[in-house]
Amino acid sequence: MTHATHDLYVELGDRRYPITIGADLLNDFEALSAVIQSQQVVVVTNETIAPLYLERLSAVLSGKQKVTSIVLPDGEQFKTLETLTLIFDRVLADQHNRNTTFVALGGGVVGDITGFAAACYQRGAGFVQIPTTLLAQVDSSVGGKTAVNHPAGKNMIGAFYQPSAVLIDTSTLNSLSNRDFAAGFAEVVKYGLIADAEFYEWISHNRAQLLQRASDALAQAIRRSCEIKARIVASDEREAGVRALLNLGHTFGHAIEAFLGFGQWLHGEAVAAGMVLAMRLSCARGAVSQSQVEHLEALLQDFGLPIAAPPSMACKEFVSLMTLDKKVINGQMRFILLDQLGSARVVDDVTVDELQRLLDDR
Amino acid sequence: MTHATHDLYVELGDRRYPITIGADLLNDFEALSAVIQSQQVVVVTNETIAPLYLERLSAVLSGKQKVTSIVLPDGEQFKTLETLTLIFDRVLADQHNRNTTFVALGGGVVGDITGFAAACYQRGAGFVQIPTTLLAQVDSSVGGKTAVNHPAGKNMIGAFYQPSAVLIDTSTLNSLSNRDFAAGFAEVVKYGLIADAEFYEWISHNRAQLLQRASDALAQAIRRSCEIKARIVASDEREAGVRALLNLGHTFGHAIEAFLGFGQWLHGEAVAAGMVLAMRLSCARGAVSQSQVEHLEALLQDFGLPIAAPPSMACKEFVSLMTLDKKVINGQMRFILLDQLGSARVVDDVTVDELQRLLDDR
Repeated sequence: MTHATHDLYVELGDRRYPITIGADLLNDFEALSAVIQSQQVVVVTNETIAPLYLERLSAVLSGKQKVTSIVLPDGEQFKTLETLTLIFDRVLADQHNRNTTFVALGGGVVGDITGFAAACYQRGAGFVQIPTTLLAQVDSSVGGKTAVNHPAGKNMIGAFYQPSAVLIDTSTLNSLSNRDFAAGFAEVVKYGLIADAEFYEWISHNRAQLLQRASDALAQAIRRSCEIKARIVASDEREAGVRALLNLGHTFGHAIEAFLGFGQWLHGEAVAAGMVLAMRLSCARGAVSQSQVEHLEALLQDFGLPIAAPPSMACKEFVSLMTLDKKVINGQMRFILLDQLGSARVVDDVTVDELQRLLDDR
Repeated sequence: MTHATHDLYVELGDRRYPITIGADLLNDFEALSAVIQSQQVVVVTNETIAPLYLERLSAVLSGKQKVTSIVLPDGEQFKTLETLTLIFDRVLADQHNRNTTFVALGGGVVGDITGFAAACYQRGAGFVQIPTTLLAQVDSSVGGKTAVNHPAGKNMIGAFYQPSAVLIDTSTLNSLSNRDFAAGFAEVVKYGLIADAEFYEWISHNRAQLLQRASDALAQAIRRSCEIKARIVASDEREAGVRALLNLGHTFGHAIEAFLGFGQWLHGEAVAAGMVLAMRLSCARGAVSQSQVEHLEALLQDFGLPIAAPPSMACKEFVSLMTLDKKVINGQMRFILLDQLGSARVVDDVTVDELQRLLDDR
C-alpha cells in the first residue's frame, strides 16, 4: 500500500487544499482518513463506478457515525436540478448536519453535481473530490467549479465551491474505457497548448506510453496538468481573467455538446474538436503555423478523438449557441486563441464572417 | 424626491456594500441607477408587492437593454426548489448573461429565493436587495444568507451570497399589514436584547410612535438595527461565531414554524415566541430577572405578537425538530441566551429536562 504524500496544493489562502496523487489511494485508510475527517459522510457516485469502488471506500469509512451512499444513474443527462433534489431528499432523510462531508466518487458529472450539492446543503457542507476518470482528475475535480445543466445550456446553475481535498487514485484509470480515457487526454493536451510548450512536446513524444496507460507516464501527465490548473485557479478563482484560458476549445465545444444534445459526444471529445477549431482560427490569424495545426490533429487522432465539428452543424448554429455561453458579455463571443504554442489569450473580436470561413473550410 | 445617501456599509473587504435608507427611494432614479448598473436586470417580486411597486421600479429601469420581471405567488410555502427552477427557466428563456443583476423586490421570502437564484445563476450573477417589509429591511436583506426550504426543514438549501447593495425605501412600510409590521418589529427588539440595552430601552420608550409607524422613529429603529447586523455580519460572515447571536429566539422559532407548517405563523411571530422562551431560559439560569421577562412579554404583546409556543406543541416535538436545526452539531442543541440585557452568548448545555421544565411552565 502506498503512503500518500500531498503532492501539490491549490493556493487559495484559508481555503488552500491539497491534491494527493498516487496509486491505490482508495485502499489507503490513512490517506482517506486524513481528508475525510467529519463523523457524517455522504458518498455520491454512479451506477458504473459503484460496483468498482464503492465497497472499498465504504469499508474505509465503516468507523464513521453515519454514511449515506447515493448511486446516481450514469450520464451527463442526469446532471440536473431534478437529480440534485433527489440528493437533498436522501441527505435530509438521513438527517445529516451541516458539518457532513460530501464525497464525490466518480467522473466530472458526479463531481460537478456533488460539489454543487455540498455548496448548497445548509449553505455549505464539507466536500472532498475522489475523481475516477482522467478528465475529472486533470480538470473538473480541481478548481471548485460545480454545476448542473439546464435544458437551455450546460452548467447554467452552479457555484464556485472549493473542495477541502482532491484524492487522485491513478489505479482507477485502468478500468476506464478507451473513449473516456481519450476524452480526458484532450484536457491534458490543452494544458500544454495554453501554458507549457515543453509539456506539449513531452506529451507528443510520449504518446505511445500514454496511450498504453503506462503508470509512470500517466502520473507525470496528471501531476503536470494539475500543477498548471492549480496555479491558474489560485491566481483567478472566479474566472475574472487568466482562468478563462482554461476554456481553450470550450466555446466551440459547449456549442457542439448543446447542438448534439448533452451526452452524445463526451465533453473531452467536444473540447478536442473545439481545440482544433481554435487552433485553426489562431493559424488564420497568423499566430501558429499550418504544420502545428496538423501536428495537433494527428496527436488527437492517435487517441481516437474527433478533430472537427459534426458536419451537420452550420455556422449559424454555432453563433446562436455560443452567444448564450457564460463567457459571453453583451452578446460578444469570446474565444481563447493561441499566441504561440504554450501561450494563449482571450480574444473578443472574432467576427461571424471569420467563423463562417473557418467552418466552411472543412 | 429624496437624494439618497449611503447611510452605512457592511464591511466585507472587496465585497463591501452599502445599505441606503430613505423615504421614496423607489422613485429615486439616481439612487436606483447607482446600485443597478448592469444592462440586463431580473426583477423578482410577488403578487402582493407587484401591484404596489413593480411599475414604479420598471419605469426607472426602462432604459436598460433587457428587463425580465418575475412575479411569484406570495408565501413562505413557495420558497422551494420548484419555484427556483421556474425562475431559472424564465431567466434562461430570456437569455440573461452572467452579468445580469437579480433585484429582489419584496419581503424575506422574495429576498431569500432571489438571492439564492443570483448565487447559482451561471455560478454567480449580480444581486441587489430592495426589501419592502420591516422584517426584510432590518434582518434578511442584510448579511447574505439566501436559501429555499425543503419539506424536511427551513432554509436547508442555500448559499452565503452577499448583495452588492441594499436599498431600504421606508415608504414601503406604509402598505404593510399590522401583522407583517409586528413580525418585523420582533427582530428590531432582538437587536436590542442581544447587542444594545440602550436601544432596547429606546424601543420600549418609543413603542407608541413605532406602533403608529411614525417615520422618524421607524427610520431610526431600522438604521440602528442594520448597524448592529452589519457589524456582526462583517466580523463573522459565515456564522462561525458571533453571528450565531443573531439567532436569539430562532432555535425555538424554527421549530415552531416547522411544527405548524411553514407559513402558518409568520417568521417574526415564531421568533417573538422563541425570544420569550430564550428569555425565560435565561431567567431560569439567573441571567435576567423575572420582571425583565415580563417587560419583554408586555412589549411584544403591545405589537400583537405571540409570547408562547402553540399549546399543542410538546417538549418532544421541540427536541426532535431542534436537533435537525443547522446550528446543531453532533445532535447537541444550541441556544442563544442572554447574559444580561444587551448581551448574549451561545449555550450548548441545555438539557431536555431543562426544556421540559420551561415548556411545562406555561
